[in-house]
Amino acid sequence: MQNLSFILNKPFDVSFSERPKPTLKDPHDVLVAVNYTGICGSDVHYWVEGKIGTFVVEKPMVLGHESSGTVVQTGSSVTSLKVGDKVALEPGTPCRRCPACLSGKYNLCDDMIFAATPPYDGTLTGFWVSPEDFCYKLPSHVSLQEGALIEPLAVAVHITKQASITPGQTVVVMGAGPVGLLCCAVAKAYGASKIVSVDIQPSRLDFAKDFAATHTFTPSRVSAEENASNLLSQTGLGQGADAVIDASGAEPSIQTSIHVVRRGGVYVQGGMGKPDISFPIMALCAKEITAKGSFRYGSGDYRLAVELVSSGKVDVKALITKTVEFGDAEQAFRDVKEGKGIKILIKGPNERA
Amino acid sequence: MQNLSFILNKPFDVSFSERPKPTLKDPHDVLVAVNYTGICGSDVHYWVEGKIGTFVVEKPMVLGHESSGTVVQTGSSVTSLKVGDKVALEPGTPCRRCPACLSGKYNLCDDMIFAATPPYDGTLTGFWVSPEDFCYKLPSHVSLQEGALIEPLAVAVHITKQASITPGQTVVVMGAGPVGLLCCAVAKAYGASKIVSVDIQPSRLDFAKDFAATHTFTPSRVSAEENASNLLSQTGLGQGADAVIDASGAEPSIQTSIHVVRRGGVYVQGGMGKPDISFPIMALCAKEITAKGSFRYGSGDYRLAVELVSSGKVDVKALITKTVEFGDAEQAFRDVKEGKGIKILIKGPNERA
Amino acid sequence: MQNLSFILNKPFDVSFSERPKPTLKDPHDVLVAVNYTGICGSDVHYWVEGKIGTFVVEKPMVLGHESSGTVVQTGSSVTSLKVGDKVALEPGTPCRRCPACLSGKYNLCDDMIFAATPPYDGTLTGFWVSPEDFCYKLPSHVSLQEGALIEPLAVAVHITKQASITPGQTVVVMGAGPVGLLCCAVAKAYGASKIVSVDIQPSRLDFAKDFAATHTFTPSRVSAEENASNLLSQTGLGQGADAVIDASGAEPSIQTSIHVVRRGGVYVQGGMGKPDISFPIMALCAKEITAKGSFRYGSGDYRLAVELVSSGKVDVKALITKTVEFGDAEQAFRDVKEGKGIKILIKGPNERA
Amino acid sequence: MQNLSFILNKPFDVSFSERPKPTLKDPHDVLVAVNYTGICGSDVHYWVEGKIGTFVVEKPMVLGHESSGTVVQTGSSVTSLKVGDKVALEPGTPCRRCPACLSGKYNLCDDMIFAATPPYDGTLTGFWVSPEDFCYKLPSHVSLQEGALIEPLAVAVHITKQASITPGQTVVVMGAGPVGLLCCAVAKAYGASKIVSVDIQPSRLDFAKDFAATHTFTPSRVSAEENASNLLSQTGLGQGADAVIDASGAEPSIQTSIHVVRRGGVYVQGGMGKPDISFPIMALCAKEITAKGSFRYGSGDYRLAVELVSSGKVDVKALITKTVEFGDAEQAFRDVKEGKGIKILIKGPNERA
Repeated sequence: MQNLSFILNKPFDVSFSERPKPTLKDPHDVLVAVNYTGICGSDVHYWVEGKIGTFVVEKPMVLGHESSGTVVQTGSSVTSLKVGDKVALEPGTPCRRCPACLSGKYNLCDDMIFAATPPYDGTLTGFWVSPEDFCYKLPSHVSLQEGALIEPLAVAVHITKQASITPGQTVVVMGAGPVGLLCCAVAKAYGASKIVSVDIQPSRLDFAKDFAATHTFTPSRVSAEENASNLLSQTGLGQGADAVIDASGAEPSIQTSIHVVRRGGVYVQGGMGKPDISFPIMALCAKEITAKGSFRYGSGDYRLAVELVSSGKVDVKALITKTVEFGDAEQAFRDVKEGKGIKILIKGPNERA
Repeated sequence: MQNLSFILNKPFDVSFSERPKPTLKDPHDVLVAVNYTGICGSDVHYWVEGKIGTFVVEKPMVLGHESSGTVVQTGSSVTSLKVGDKVALEPGTPCRRCPACLSGKYNLCDDMIFAATPPYDGTLTGFWVSPEDFCYKLPSHVSLQEGALIEPLAVAVHITKQASITPGQTVVVMGAGPVGLLCCAVAKAYGASKIVSVDIQPSRLDFAKDFAATHTFTPSRVSAEENASNLLSQTGLGQGADAVIDASGAEPSIQTSIHVVRRGGVYVQGGMGKPDISFPIMALCAKEITAKGSFRYGSGDYRLAVELVSSGKVDVKALITKTVEFGDAEQAFRDVKEGKGIKILIKGPNERA
Repeated sequence: MQNLSFILNKPFDVSFSERPKPTLKDPHDVLVAVNYTGICGSDVHYWVEGKIGTFVVEKPMVLGHESSGTVVQTGSSVTSLKVGDKVALEPGTPCRRCPACLSGKYNLCDDMIFAATPPYDGTLTGFWVSPEDFCYKLPSHVSLQEGALIEPLAVAVHITKQASITPGQTVVVMGAGPVGLLCCAVAKAYGASKIVSVDIQPSRLDFAKDFAATHTFTPSRVSAEENASNLLSQTGLGQGADAVIDASGAEPSIQTSIHVVRRGGVYVQGGMGKPDISFPIMALCAKEITAKGSFRYGSGDYRLAVELVSSGKVDVKALITKTVEFGDAEQAFRDVKEGKGIKILIKGPNERA
Repeated sequence: MQNLSFILNKPFDVSFSERPKPTLKDPHDVLVAVNYTGICGSDVHYWVEGKIGTFVVEKPMVLGHESSGTVVQTGSSVTSLKVGDKVALEPGTPCRRCPACLSGKYNLCDDMIFAATPPYDGTLTGFWVSPEDFCYKLPSHVSLQEGALIEPLAVAVHITKQASITPGQTVVVMGAGPVGLLCCAVAKAYGASKIVSVDIQPSRLDFAKDFAATHTFTPSRVSAEENASNLLSQTGLGQGADAVIDASGAEPSIQTSIHVVRRGGVYVQGGMGKPDISFPIMALCAKEITAKGSFRYGSGDYRLAVELVSSGKVDVKALITKTVEFGDAEQAFRDVKEGKGIKILIKGPNERA
């Protein structure tokens, strides 16, 4: 078997290359043959810009971090996995020793090694080494294609946990891309009674309605206050939503979010966008809003994501637009950049057609 | 006894006038003769602008809401107070029936009747009627002057509770006005090990250091990131503060706050300022900051404020710059507007000199 | 219309009697004609023993507290209800003024006036007066019979909230009486992935399986440790359940609960039984279990109960064994005492057959 | 330098023996020369009984786990410590990989390796190897003797955190042994306004009063309810304490605890005793008490313990009755068993007299 990898050299310059097959570094490690990898907005952003914030691609880097695979080798201390197991890969390994790690917030570890975040290579490759506890066994009735969707679902799980949604609450989700859609589905699993999906593209809202939202709303070219007021009256949310999740990163959406959340409610920033925006800070103060950021995923998030798929509560298959061969990775990136479909999967280089 | 009141007619136009002495409306009510009233920034703001946000003074309104007094009459169902008791007055009465009230968040009640917030009259008057449970008996060793400071201390208690400070944590407080200073003192009572007071006026920082802060910092005319970086290095806070409280409302302070708080830390907006500001939203997202607004005070805050004064943990007397006669109220407002001193008290109209 | 009432004089001595029709005492009150009342174990306990703990029936008392009704008169300040509205009645009114009430824990109010708890009369009567905010309007598609089940469902909602269940967690519920069954259903609405119903009666477990449980377990006459071990292995719960709810009050069930919950898990005592039992306190200590009591229901519980029925998430109709005329109330109490069926409803005296 | 160790062979049979000097197993490890070790009740229990619960001494085991030491060697990846640093040793190393560890609850790790808990050796030895992050550097003004007290203080910190004490609350601590006394001091650091120490020995209560308690109480040979009632009236706690900590493990104390805590209050089981006791379960239910176990210490506890000593908030020196030579270890165990003094320290075998 080969270890062909899909590599970003610099913006818009990618190549395929054989890399050394990785080896186990610790008795708790497993070696996994990668089967499917989804493309994330951040992958595309690196491909286009060569950086995200302070993370700059300074040497060729393997792309990809939303992957499933099959265990092909296990370290001597591994007990929960065996060769042949299908797994979802959690693509970041924390240090396990800093205060953040020891307090259960490993996603905030300063020494995190995260796939396809410079300078670390990603999972669009043949083989991947991971600690056993960052590989999540898929039940037999969950496919490897679904397994590649566990990563964005874990992102949505983490965002939704930050929103502390309980049964009977009302939730507004700004943005109906893959993460926004999955946030709607997770909010439903948390028992939300009204879930409003907000986007400017009608086709996405139609999808959201079929997928998990109970209501949809299309913002207009009016002020954030006016959009908020229209949203609340059109969806019957009265004095405001219990929780608002921004999965768009867009400035007008964030502004509207603050005006949509009720007094004492929660707003979670889940989408990436401009570093600084005009923000209604006094509304946050006077309404005693709790605003939280959400960064990647942490303790228990992958486990819950697998459970939500396994139990049928979240139908991630519905998000898969198509699956392409490893050799067609660049074209797949182009398609995602142009907004074609929701989620495109790339087969691993050792996966037969 | 008279019921002389200090009344705002329109911006910069105040007068003294006899108002009808109020009467008990409910068997749980008490009648209180007002002894001392502090002047708050919001009182001055109404005096200067005639409004705060959507609250507009449309008819003459009695000013003042930071008061202590003496019980002079008790309703038939009152059990915890008797004539002659010295009390601190909590100046807002909630509806007790809405979901916010029933869930213990009465400060978020939509039907709150709050002193000196249009259209409701304030406490710069001779007599005041309050439900028994919004009057807090002062221990014999706490003076009525101190009692007038319970209100701003309750504001600081509420802000500091929002910050969830626990022993050993590090706290930065932006702004060294009365509320900022009291936040430093409350943070100390919550066990904070480092308390950094930030202000542009050196004299305030000197006071803060004597009062409750362990460190001080003067921001410069540089970017928020640079001020944050300087603050962290000069005060030994390393990767960031566990909690940052903005008690200034100033845009640069809020921006700096977000860059000063550590990953996973808490930021509380306690000061009022411009409704919309440029805000580092992606720093909030990537650091998973919890940002909270703080609005007035709620369940248990007044009780704790009295306890902090009674036990000697917070020396509110140190904040009292001077006490003036009721007839000198307008001059006192002028002094506060010009930043003279920290807290000026006005005697009640029935209080002998 | 009459105000016939079903009255407990002393143990096993009941009678029907006309009582004065109650009148509105406060402008926020409404007058409700009672339509249906369920019988609770505590009603039967008063009927049999004349007391529960320190609550002793010392004068004739109207029984009943699980009721629905129809609004027939509204006070002058009532805004959310109108004559003709169908409502579920929350049968306890707190003082709204004590620290428990003001902090959102009104179920812990020392001055609670609770239906059919001595010395206060209950709802097996023609008319009932309640504050507007303790009457919950039923949507048009929810029947008044279902409305009478909102009370036990609110009990289950409160218990389940105490257990802090989140999606994907595993829950064991001891006891498959009405409250235990409803706890299973509420746990499902909270997203629990495994719900084990435990009872000694096979027919109840069959019902539980159809109703909401994913697994059932019948304890044997062995030690609590052994029953716990058997339960965990038979239901695939591994090292323990995330949460265990005791809705039985039985000593062996409580002991087993502590051995069934995982390290760091939650146990909630929801059922009433002997005041003192042999309890595995060191297991609680060493496993760092959080044990919580649950008492009646509080802020938001009734609202969520109505929402769970309205949305179809909890099918309370399935629990209604039969509905009898008001005049057959005593026989209905006999039936409940003998364990006939799950929930028996008694029509109000003004309800036509 | 030697590696002399103090070894328990079987109950009441101890010996001194040279053990191989341990070596670094991981680049993050440090080698520490042990300076001082306190004797804990559990050490004495193993010496007397040869077991605690299911932990049985089946082969000779080095005793001791409350130690301070000096770094003598550092692994290649160590960055926070250097040779010569004085440290407090956290004597248990978790697996860092299980769900408990990853969620920040490493004290509940099933694979914990804990000093002087069979089959693992303890710290009454010359040299000890520890991961860098389980050694806590002592500031220069904190002595190594104080460093040996960080372990019991961390126990008290963990217990007190479980009690969620906030400023102004009232706390009762059952038992005035080392851990109970330290709980009083930590409760004070958390801002408790009343701290009642309860013990049957008057001399311990005198010490408690000087050390950190505001009130003391001596229980009588009456029922738990009566002792609770007496305690509340004698200490002015009214309707109950906000939090009660049992640091005694004694059945009557635990029973009294439940009757002393207020409605909605917290009770923490921190002391070890009989596995099963008669427990007032219905009081827990009806008062909606939150009962929590406390097991060892976890994330942040040692760090806070060092800070409390460093800042002078907890004067652990006051607890040190005497310090003996390593060769006198057996006599020291005898003294502790006979209740002589509060805390006895044993010098490390390489510590000069």
